[in-house]
Amino acid sequence: MNSKIERLIKQFARLPRLGTRAGQRIVLALLQDKTGRAENLANALLDAAATIRPCPICGILTDADMPMCEFCRDTARCNGQLCIVRDLSDVWTLEKSAVFHGRYHILGGLLSGVSGITPGDLNISNLPERIKNENISEIIFALPNTVEGKTTQHYVMSVIGDVVGLRFSELASGVPLGGDLDYLDDGTLSLAFDGRRGL
Amino acid sequence: MNSKIERLIKQFARLPRLGTRAGQRIVLALLQDKTGRAENLANALLDAAATIRPCPICGILTDADMPMCEFCRDTARCNGQLCIVRDLSDVWTLEKSAVFHGRYHILGGLLSGVSGITPGDLNISNLPERIKNENISEIIFALPNTVEGKTTQHYVMSVIGDVVGLRFSELASGVPLGGDLDYLDDGTLSLAFDGRRGL
Repeated sequence: MNSKIERLIKQFARLPRLGTRAGQRIVLALLQDKTGRAENLANALLDAAATIRPCPICGILTDADMPMCEFCRDTARCNGQLCIVRDLSDVWTLEKSAVFHGRYHILGGLLSGVSGITPGDLNISNLPERIKNENISEIIFALPNTVEGKTTQHYVMSVIGDVVGLRFSELASGVPLGGDLDYLDDGTLSLAFDGRRGL
Repeated sequence: MNSKIERLIKQFARLPRLGTRAGQRIVLALLQDKTGRAENLANALLDAAATIRPCPICGILTDADMPMCEFCRDTARCNGQLCIVRDLSDVWTLEKSAVFHGRYHILGGLLSGVSGITPGDLNISNLPERIKNENISEIIFALPNTVEGKTTQHYVMSVIGDVVGLRFSELASGVPLGGDLDYLDDGTLSLAFDGRRGL
């Protein structure tokens, strides 16, 4: 195989959710396209890499020529609620469902002994200041319902400490909408039982 | 969502085997990476798009500064066998298994009424000349075992016509290695019966 093509396939294959076969298909589609798709994609990527950076306040990727992101600029979003998420993709998911109208804080990962992710790798240190500056009254944890998610949640709570009037909450656990009990794992079932609501 | 990021995600989402969710994951991974992965990928893509083109003889993607690809340059490959495939990825698959040592001819697609692919879209016209120039004695069709594959095969045979001493063959159909009859479709089973071998 041509060495340039081979190297390009390897670079694509290392991207999340891809592998060698998918990388081959993608590289073939791009290089065989006669409408300049490869150049367009490459230039869009270069442009974004040069002009996008994380918002210094919340960590959402935004234009580098703006002092902060669209969420932190939007005063209507300053409603006292701060939703803590792992990743920007979680923000996109929550925004699509339009369930939350406050501000976000992106940790950029979860504490993990296995992957060697320590508190220093996460966007936590400016949280106490944010809570004061933006008059936050409720912290909502929307982290994955996993050991890493819960560990990170406890750690973040310990960093924030006791602030008068500050409430903490987390997303409810239980049976998903349309979820069949047959297909539910024991852990979720047990959480759904523990959290059962009176009628 | 930032419009630049949105556009980049859409471009990735349109690539083969990807969708919006995979596009989001990939764009996030690239833009959040601090080792210059986005720039490296973009530059490798620009470089390949500028310097790679199909071999004028067989259609395999190769360096534009070479008159022909490595297969067409390799005289040891000129053994009288020509394998006709749909796509460069089929060449890679065949090369990996090292079952074929002749030359390839890439059609660049299959005839399809549904997708509107006509003979003019395929790399067929120079085939009769190739057969003469390279002293081909056997044409091996390694096209998908589908209606489109068979239609294309018949069409290519009609274009080549009767050449004295030229044999045609196609890959065998049947039960795959390790294949369980339970999981086999009726079509394959019927082909395997029709093509049964005496012991």
